Amino acid sequence: MGTTIMMPTPTATPPDVTTFERLESQVRSYSRAMPRLFNRAEGVWMEDAQGGRYLDLLSGCSSLNYGHNHPVLKQALLDYIAADGIAHSLDLHTAAKQAFLIELERTILVPRGLSYRAMFTGPTGTNAVEAALKLARKVTGRQHVIAFTNGFHGMTLGSLACTGNAGKRDGAGVPLNHVSHEPFDGYYGPGIDTADLLDQRLSDPSSGLDQPAAILVEAVQGEGGLNVASADWLRKIADIAKRHGALLILDDIQAGCGRTGGFFSFEEAGIIPDIVTLAKSLSGMGLPFALALLRPELDQWLPGEHNGTFRGNCHAFVTATAALRHFWRDGTFEQTVHQRADLLGRRLHAIAAPYGDQMRVKGRGMMQGIDVGSGEIATRITAAAFARGVIIETSGAHNEVVKVLAPLTITEAELSQGLHILEQCVALAVTPHYSAAAE
Amino acid sequence: MGTTIMMPTPTATPPDVTTFERLESQVRSYSRAMPRLFNRAEGVWMEDAQGGRYLDLLSGCSSLNYGHNHPVLKQALLDYIAADGIAHSLDLHTAAKQAFLIELERTILVPRGLSYRAMFTGPTGTNAVEAALKLARKVTGRQHVIAFTNGFHGMTLGSLACTGNAGKRDGAGVPLNHVSHEPFDGYYGPGIDTADLLDQRLSDPSSGLDQPAAILVEAVQGEGGLNVASADWLRKIADIAKRHGALLILDDIQAGCGRTGGFFSFEEAGIIPDIVTLAKSLSGMGLPFALALLRPELDQWLPGEHNGTFRGNCHAFVTATAALRHFWRDGTFEQTVHQRADLLGRRLHAIAAPYGDQMRVKGRGMMQGIDVGSGEIATRITAAAFARGVIIETSGAHNEVVKVLAPLTITEAELSQGLHILEQCVALAVTPHYSAAAE
Amino acid sequence: MGTTIMMPTPTATPPDVTTFERLESQVRSYSRAMPRLFNRAEGVWMEDAQGGRYLDLLSGCSSLNYGHNHPVLKQALLDYIAADGIAHSLDLHTAAKQAFLIELERTILVPRGLSYRAMFTGPTGTNAVEAALKLARKVTGRQHVIAFTNGFHGMTLGSLACTGNAGKRDGAGVPLNHVSHEPFDGYYGPGIDTADLLDQRLSDPSSGLDQPAAILVEAVQGEGGLNVASADWLRKIADIAKRHGALLILDDIQAGCGRTGGFFSFEEAGIIPDIVTLAKSLSGMGLPFALALLRPELDQWLPGEHNGTFRGNCHAFVTATAALRHFWRDGTFEQTVHQRADLLGRRLHAIAAPYGDQMRVKGRGMMQGIDVGSGEIATRITAAAFARGVIIETSGAHNEVVKVLAPLTITEAELSQGLHILEQCVALAVTPHYSAAAE
Amino acid sequence: MGTTIMMPTPTATPPDVTTFERLESQVRSYSRAMPRLFNRAEGVWMEDAQGGRYLDLLSGCSSLNYGHNHPVLKQALLDYIAADGIAHSLDLHTAAKQAFLIELERTILVPRGLSYRAMFTGPTGTNAVEAALKLARKVTGRQHVIAFTNGFHGMTLGSLACTGNAGKRDGAGVPLNHVSHEPFDGYYGPGIDTADLLDQRLSDPSSGLDQPAAILVEAVQGEGGLNVASADWLRKIADIAKRHGALLILDDIQAGCGRTGGFFSFEEAGIIPDIVTLAKSLSGMGLPFALALLRPELDQWLPGEHNGTFRGNCHAFVTATAALRHFWRDGTFEQTVHQRADLLGRRLHAIAAPYGDQMRVKGRGMMQGIDVGSGEIATRITAAAFARGVIIETSGAHNEVVKVLAPLTITEAELSQGLHILEQCVALAVTPHYSAAAE
Repeated sequence: MGTTIMMPTPTATPPDVTTFERLESQVRSYSRAMPRLFNRAEGVWMEDAQGGRYLDLLSGCSSLNYGHNHPVLKQALLDYIAADGIAHSLDLHTAAKQAFLIELERTILVPRGLSYRAMFTGPTGTNAVEAALKLARKVTGRQHVIAFTNGFHGMTLGSLACTGNAGKRDGAGVPLNHVSHEPFDGYYGPGIDTADLLDQRLSDPSSGLDQPAAILVEAVQGEGGLNVASADWLRKIADIAKRHGALLILDDIQAGCGRTGGFFSFEEAGIIPDIVTLAKSLSGMGLPFALALLRPELDQWLPGEHNGTFRGNCHAFVTATAALRHFWRDGTFEQTVHQRADLLGRRLHAIAAPYGDQMRVKGRGMMQGIDVGSGEIATRITAAAFARGVIIETSGAHNEVVKVLAPLTITEAELSQGLHILEQCVALAVTPHYSAAAE
Repeated sequence: MGTTIMMPTPTATPPDVTTFERLESQVRSYSRAMPRLFNRAEGVWMEDAQGGRYLDLLSGCSSLNYGHNHPVLKQALLDYIAADGIAHSLDLHTAAKQAFLIELERTILVPRGLSYRAMFTGPTGTNAVEAALKLARKVTGRQHVIAFTNGFHGMTLGSLACTGNAGKRDGAGVPLNHVSHEPFDGYYGPGIDTADLLDQRLSDPSSGLDQPAAILVEAVQGEGGLNVASADWLRKIADIAKRHGALLILDDIQAGCGRTGGFFSFEEAGIIPDIVTLAKSLSGMGLPFALALLRPELDQWLPGEHNGTFRGNCHAFVTATAALRHFWRDGTFEQTVHQRADLLGRRLHAIAAPYGDQMRVKGRGMMQGIDVGSGEIATRITAAAFARGVIIETSGAHNEVVKVLAPLTITEAELSQGLHILEQCVALAVTPHYSAAAE
Repeated sequence: MGTTIMMPTPTATPPDVTTFERLESQVRSYSRAMPRLFNRAEGVWMEDAQGGRYLDLLSGCSSLNYGHNHPVLKQALLDYIAADGIAHSLDLHTAAKQAFLIELERTILVPRGLSYRAMFTGPTGTNAVEAALKLARKVTGRQHVIAFTNGFHGMTLGSLACTGNAGKRDGAGVPLNHVSHEPFDGYYGPGIDTADLLDQRLSDPSSGLDQPAAILVEAVQGEGGLNVASADWLRKIADIAKRHGALLILDDIQAGCGRTGGFFSFEEAGIIPDIVTLAKSLSGMGLPFALALLRPELDQWLPGEHNGTFRGNCHAFVTATAALRHFWRDGTFEQTVHQRADLLGRRLHAIAAPYGDQMRVKGRGMMQGIDVGSGEIATRITAAAFARGVIIETSGAHNEVVKVLAPLTITEAELSQGLHILEQCVALAVTPHYSAAAE
Repeated sequence: MGTTIMMPTPTATPPDVTTFERLESQVRSYSRAMPRLFNRAEGVWMEDAQGGRYLDLLSGCSSLNYGHNHPVLKQALLDYIAADGIAHSLDLHTAAKQAFLIELERTILVPRGLSYRAMFTGPTGTNAVEAALKLARKVTGRQHVIAFTNGFHGMTLGSLACTGNAGKRDGAGVPLNHVSHEPFDGYYGPGIDTADLLDQRLSDPSSGLDQPAAILVEAVQGEGGLNVASADWLRKIADIAKRHGALLILDDIQAGCGRTGGFFSFEEAGIIPDIVTLAKSLSGMGLPFALALLRPELDQWLPGEHNGTFRGNCHAFVTATAALRHFWRDGTFEQTVHQRADLLGRRLHAIAAPYGDQMRVKGRGMMQGIDVGSGEIATRITAAAFARGVIIETSGAHNEVVKVLAPLTITEAELSQGLHILEQCVALAVTPHYSAAAE
């Protein structure tokens, strides 16, 4: 692979995947729509074992904001391993963790006027959410949590209770309690301010809505269909949380780490959440790493009250530190992301425009996409794109949104190339005579 | 660092850790008892930033069974990264995953007559347990789960409900339901067979004990104080599960991957669990990786019914494959582990013997330790050991068990050295005039 | 006491109630606002032990729709007891129960085109609600239930979970799960149809609102502040329940038995609930008696699957049968109730009118009242009324509604008399110089 | 009916019960085994509408300890109703309630050195249990409750969670949480003290058994099969509750009101429970009435925090007062009950003796019976008895116990007559050639 612009050159025929059929659980999902055997990746490109090349507009669901194997991060990791740097440390103090904390403070927190403590939870987003929920319940002495329609927060029982998707919820096998799901911004259409509705019920001692320990919200709902909370609405929610004695937990696992332009997705709203959860792109290289940022006065944990084996994943500390240093010490990267996002938005609108009310551009920053009206059409589009070497996925309650989650490091040329293919696939998918077999 | 025997040379004075105090959550725990700044590690040795050297008899709570940065695993990982191998793959098919599955089948499953499918859960033990619980509830249509006294299964809500420790449980902030905790083998003393008690209640339609979806058990309770389930008792539990229509989930997260000698801790009992959970040492290098092994007929998941971002951690696939290939293709390693375990057991008995009833050796294989009668004495011992450059921890309901979790790759000489120091610390800790200040 | 119009002649000084203070629990409530020692009652009049007479506009919270000790019911009961009629029968077939069933079918069900089976639950409203919830969950295989803001359904755990009032809910001591509370008709003001909002979320598989076993609703919320569901809204809710596979449970415990004119409060809406719960005035004399009416195809109970000691309270069967026979065999009584209700409504509007926006008449039929804007003012009014010999209470989230629940058998003259006093008390309570001490 | 000894003269042919089949829910149970139409009753005798006479050895499951329509109670009630005594009073102070409280204090509490406050819950046993559980959780701030195998405490969700029977529990339709069921006295056989087992787990912070708000226990398990807690065991349980900060709730609903001889079943053990629940025979005439007795310092209710419509059932106050006055002011009645119980025990042993190990007498006082080894045989026995005019029922997990719950007022002659018939039925039921058809 080189760094010049390449054309996607997908492999036409699926490889032998009987190993997976025999030995891997039926629970696997992405591999069903993209049945290739991947082995190498660099920047926005993935390669399969048969030599096929794919443009990655999925980025590990926003886990690879800086692309695959970014050379700076990769080198930092190679050096660290070669020097026998500690890989696994439980929660001991390590030089790698110290460097990360210092970089986080200097490069992210101080410039934004934020004062947080970092809690290294188990290295998955759901674990950070579970930790945040525990802390909110502990600090407030309350049990109920308010989450939102179409929210996605993870698959372990505590987080799953906060997740809206019925298919995911049904997997629990037990009732998911102590959480109610309020309508997200715009859920009932433009005429109804759902924050006001929530406030009314929380203010009514006979509403049956228990006083919450926390309000758990995403600024942009990635899995839920690229629904965007307006800055006004977020500020109202933050105010509601404060007035009703609840903590505001902002789940920035998918929308954070620059995905919407700023490091945090809530920066534009000017709010300061009580707890912020981060994961996915935090390590910068796709390594498992998750974090809950806590306002110091809320850091009322007892030692070990929430723990886990892999919360000191030093490889991730190393790459995360390198990523913060490389991309975030000045505003250049953020500015570039905004430029790419503008391009993305313009092009998506152009793609959707011919279809009038049938299609609608949604999202913010570099997490935008098109609601194409049905999961059937959306799946046609992503299948057609994959057949042309573009990796892209759907989201939303009915999988009706084609979601562009390109690496933030994508060049204009690469992004244009991908969107050009997407445009063709949209046109193809909506033709009356569409036939999957024809693909 | 070299490979010859070294003496522990701990750093006498704690380093400046104000960065952690200012920026890391109070929830940190191990670093409190071992306030050094670690940076390098190889085999059984850890180094701090001031040049101190420590013999690691904790092994990341059994996450580093092959020691730190084992050269074979390290080289495999360096080669993979250098070649731009995919780091993060969601659950796409990757060459790294395929190689792992093939090695797992060939080296672990087939020789043991086991037929399992691998479910790659989120890369933490608790996530594997959550997945196992979900599946058991889905398959059986039941909600109740039976766990055991002193069991430890993780900190997310579903797993935490199965964990016995009150301090951990209290962190939930909500009631932990759908689980009851039955007495483990030997809990009520030698005269009472706790499996029979369980069977009686499950057979009585008015006992109030709901028919369970699963019985979740560890063969050796690592966190719970090195309590060992006898082979007979495990077979009874397996039989009870079968007769009452429940799945047997064997949580082998701490005791598996060779810790008790065989790859699985339940091999001696000759049982075949319905689901086995693995994590900790699975990657071989301490990287986040977890797995649930499912009997194929139980693999009734819908695609994506349990998912997560980091369940395709290819770095871990690479090192895990290398570890299986290097250590498990023949019986040499297992035989060596048994020899070390014999040595460990003999020496621990010798250490405990002078104290008569006050001390008791517990555990099995390379997870043995001494119940010293109180958490106070145990903590004195581990503190004294750390002051002498030996990293070792306690476990049990009252932290009353000093637990030796050395890397399985430790040499006889290294193990003897560590136990010699431990012996001195035990003697010191029980002296009437013990003073922590004297340390 | 006679049957001619009497003036209320309250006792001025509270009696010695030290017996109650010493021996009865603090949980007592009504006796705090009305500290007299009552002993006799007839029709709309209650007498205390000191000879004071009180006009009862509370009717045991709608448990005495036919007044106290109605002569027809009283005689039937005296005859039954004198003849050694069975008092307690568990759920054996008794002649008293048979007579009730026949009368219920003939007088209530057949004329209304209803086909229900009667389930005799424990003789409290909450027990009927618990039974209805159990059956809905059993029949649908679902667990979630939708109740409404300001709903009141009882105080045992299952019913309490469906009750909106925070003070009541807090008494549970455990989280109240498996229920969410949706906005009742008009909750968000005139511009928002809350049935549509509910439908939208139930139709969205990612809303996080689980598919419900039942929708539990009152046609008029008695405890909740005399909120009235419109016929249109009720029909929409019935339709929503049907379309989403949920049972419609109409809780007619307070609003049924003629309180709104028809025997059932939902008759005007023309809906046929799947389950109807009745209690309070069912026995006609205030005796404990409750009932769940079930559509026959839903009667999937196993024998004894819900039971209880007092579900065959034959004294109540006797008086209930007499009440149905006396009041409901033709339309005379219903017509009279409508006339009284008209009078009540007109007079309440006249009372409220001078206060403009500060006061608002609420309710339907013979359960109407005035929202006076605050619990403080409402409590002044009821206190002033009691001081003048009128027993009347408040309801609503903030006790802000003065609620007239007169016996349906009240004469025009009696009702006018009571409302005349109420009018005076309202005027008194809103004066700027109001002083409780002045009473 | 007269007061002289009569022979049972059952009606041979079932009456037409199509009314019930058409109009009453399938949930009915007792009427299935005893398909007659009952209408009158006096003392130990019930009459059906066809003139059949039945000896009642069931007593409404201990709700009619003083027999049917006891003349003293009946007259008190007739006088009260005739004088227009208040029937229904919400929780207002009434003369009837005052008289009851004074009689309770004077006749029951003071002589036993007890200091309790009376909480008038909804008039069903389950409501009293729900109230007790709420208060225990409120006072302790804990949520978990310990109940016992084979315990029965009611059918509303809170009480049902404490009930052991799987058939009843399954009716809940939701998981029954916050309660665990520990083995009752003798559950694991004579060699194991189950109180010690409980104490061990409560004393172990890693047992997974949460610290309880309450321990809820029956001194004799009526529904559970006449299992008797020894005085020693009860004292141990009381001590365990105290040491672990839990309230001891003694559910005396079935075993209280003289059933075991003393007014309370726990008098022999010399313990003072924190809360006692009473219902069933409390009114003396089978009228709905329930009560929770609270140690005054636990009476931390807010006004109305637990309420209900029928908690001021004045008819029941009147008969309950008459019952306490008539039966309990001196020791005569209690002495007679002990004599009858001795007779009952001797005769049951004589009946069981010929069958050796196959049969076993269980119970205490006037709640004794025979475990006949299987529900099939027990049901044969009760069916044969009914065919001979004796009303008697089974209990136990498998309905294997034939339970004699005669009115305590039964004469020696009547009891002998009933037991004579029972003896015949036992002999008949165990014959190898038994055929139900032959009945």
